[in-house]
Amino acid sequence: VAKPAARTIDWVDDAIVAIDQTLLPGDEVYLQIRDVETLAEAIRTLRIRGAMGLGVAGGLGVALAIRRAQEAGADPVRAAADAADVLARTRPTAANLFRGIERVHAAVADGPDAAVATAVELIAEDVAANTAIGERGADLLGELLAGGRETFVALTHCNAGALAGVDVGTALGVIAALHHRGRVGEVLACETRPLLQGARLTCWELARLGVNHSLIVDSAAAGLVGRGEIDFVVVGADRIAANGDVANKVGTFSHALAAQYAGIPFLVAAPEMTIDAGCPDGSSIPIEERAADEVTQFAGVSTAPPGVRARNPAFDVTPAELVTAIVTERRVIRTAAGERAAPSRERIPVA
Amino acid sequence: VAKPAARTIDWVDDAIVAIDQTLLPGDEVYLQIRDVETLAEAIRTLRIRGAMGLGVAGGLGVALAIRRAQEAGADPVRAAADAADVLARTRPTAANLFRGIERVHAAVADGPDAAVATAVELIAEDVAANTAIGERGADLLGELLAGGRETFVALTHCNAGALAGVDVGTALGVIAALHHRGRVGEVLACETRPLLQGARLTCWELARLGVNHSLIVDSAAAGLVGRGEIDFVVVGADRIAANGDVANKVGTFSHALAAQYAGIPFLVAAPEMTIDAGCPDGSSIPIEERAADEVTQFAGVSTAPPGVRARNPAFDVTPAELVTAIVTERRVIRTAAGERAAPSRERIPVA
Repeated sequence: VAKPAARTIDWVDDAIVAIDQTLLPGDEVYLQIRDVETLAEAIRTLRIRGAMGLGVAGGLGVALAIRRAQEAGADPVRAAADAADVLARTRPTAANLFRGIERVHAAVADGPDAAVATAVELIAEDVAANTAIGERGADLLGELLAGGRETFVALTHCNAGALAGVDVGTALGVIAALHHRGRVGEVLACETRPLLQGARLTCWELARLGVNHSLIVDSAAAGLVGRGEIDFVVVGADRIAANGDVANKVGTFSHALAAQYAGIPFLVAAPEMTIDAGCPDGSSIPIEERAADEVTQFAGVSTAPPGVRARNPAFDVTPAELVTAIVTERRVIRTAAGERAAPSRERIPVA
Repeated sequence: VAKPAARTIDWVDDAIVAIDQTLLPGDEVYLQIRDVETLAEAIRTLRIRGAMGLGVAGGLGVALAIRRAQEAGADPVRAAADAADVLARTRPTAANLFRGIERVHAAVADGPDAAVATAVELIAEDVAANTAIGERGADLLGELLAGGRETFVALTHCNAGALAGVDVGTALGVIAALHHRGRVGEVLACETRPLLQGARLTCWELARLGVNHSLIVDSAAAGLVGRGEIDFVVVGADRIAANGDVANKVGTFSHALAAQYAGIPFLVAAPEMTIDAGCPDGSSIPIEERAADEVTQFAGVSTAPPGVRARNPAFDVTPAELVTAIVTERRVIRTAAGERAAPSRERIPVA
């Protein structure tokens, strides 16, 4: 099949149903989540993850709180505010998480049921936005790589696929659209240490899409780019500053450096809601530092001497000048050519 | 203690004694190797590894063959030639391996015992060369970073330490010398996927040297360099082309790109024998492609869906223009400033 059998995250019978991404690719298990605390824990432990998926999850989380309050005869307005607060503290970098939470929380002003309806709308909006991003990205690549080979070799990092959203990915949405046009020769998927979302999730998705692919360690990408084996890089984004600096999964920056060195396009595929006009540049994007044992252990086995200290930043910032273009559902922003990402908007609150 | 309790590789009672590096950091086990086939297998499986260690191992391997032939009443000249042939096929990228083999094989012309003596000399030469590299590298860093902080934060990749040679490292030799001068604040050690030599070996050595260190995933390095958290990068080399292009463990190239972007020194520490004057540039250095399961499995656990294909280049090439300097036991070669690495020598034969 061309996509997961069920949506990555959905709203069914006033509850969230989401695939447990920590169990992939081994097991395809769907979680039913009925309360905010369980959701917050699922987000912290990356059972639910991905830039756009977090936006939908944040919004649906506020809806969960409203429904549970209504069932218990409690105050849904107060419950929505509390949920917004708890959920905003789960992951500090992802812009969409805050956007989803804020959007549904703001809709409470129109009544609790209106807020729940707004949350449910996020699902369809995500699919529509990512579908548009995919087509626009494929168009842009056709243009940027015109006169070159008939089929391209792409590099991607982490998972910016259907599993990072609802049903269609951003970076993998672009690849899927290009594949549909018969123009994907191969995708090189970076494994994405420490949590291996590339190995576990992207390879799983690419196999389902029927796209020819190979797995590489993250640090092999630059050498392959340097040897001319890759035609373009496409990644997602967790937050984009007003000037076009891009926070994305740790490792993205070095792919951008390699792409610039080799003179190949480096595309960022992300919905408009990823752009944080309140962040003037990448230096004001908070970077989540995760637990050391993600680095020092694998599958319960130590990879380093006992007691070793580790640093574990989950994201890095790619400067706008290295980004050929950011592709959103509305436009192509040619950041390396000096175009800014931001319409002016309020700053996303930092938990 | 400041160094491993025993040498990484040594010659004892006409046999090789070497620490089994695949068992570190869990167990410190020394192998006694008496025949060429066992040695070749130990090299292929990385029980014996490291740029300089391979040079010594290659030379001692030819000596093993001579001694076994003498004991069996066979022809030591023929045995040395056969051993040189077998050992040269074990790892295609490392220049020192071929140099060590060639040097001892050539000495057979002066008689089998002279060849064995030449092999044993490689051990002391390696220690002397690396000691000189360490001091010269520390001097150079003092110069390049003059006027900056009193103590520096270093980044290194893979293991170019005592475990990559006999008793003193190249990149870690520089760090050890700088540490001795009280100028190392911290070393960030890249774990070095897929085989985690950084996590397993470099952290083990740094702990023994008493150097403050933290482990990071390889792809976190660029972001930390970009945020100004690192003062310099120092790595070893497996082969250096005449123009100064450097083949080293996969992942090195992206550290060099990040260093250039941030304007910090990128040093390569390697003995003269690593320079292959017969390779005009990096494109003529053969890059070893290792088995896919090094990428798709860890500690016997699959990291990716069953049947996924993987690419696994063990090395990459860093262009000379990104290398601030190559430090050898004899000189500082300022490659980024246009200095070439090569005196003219014959091409190292490719197995």
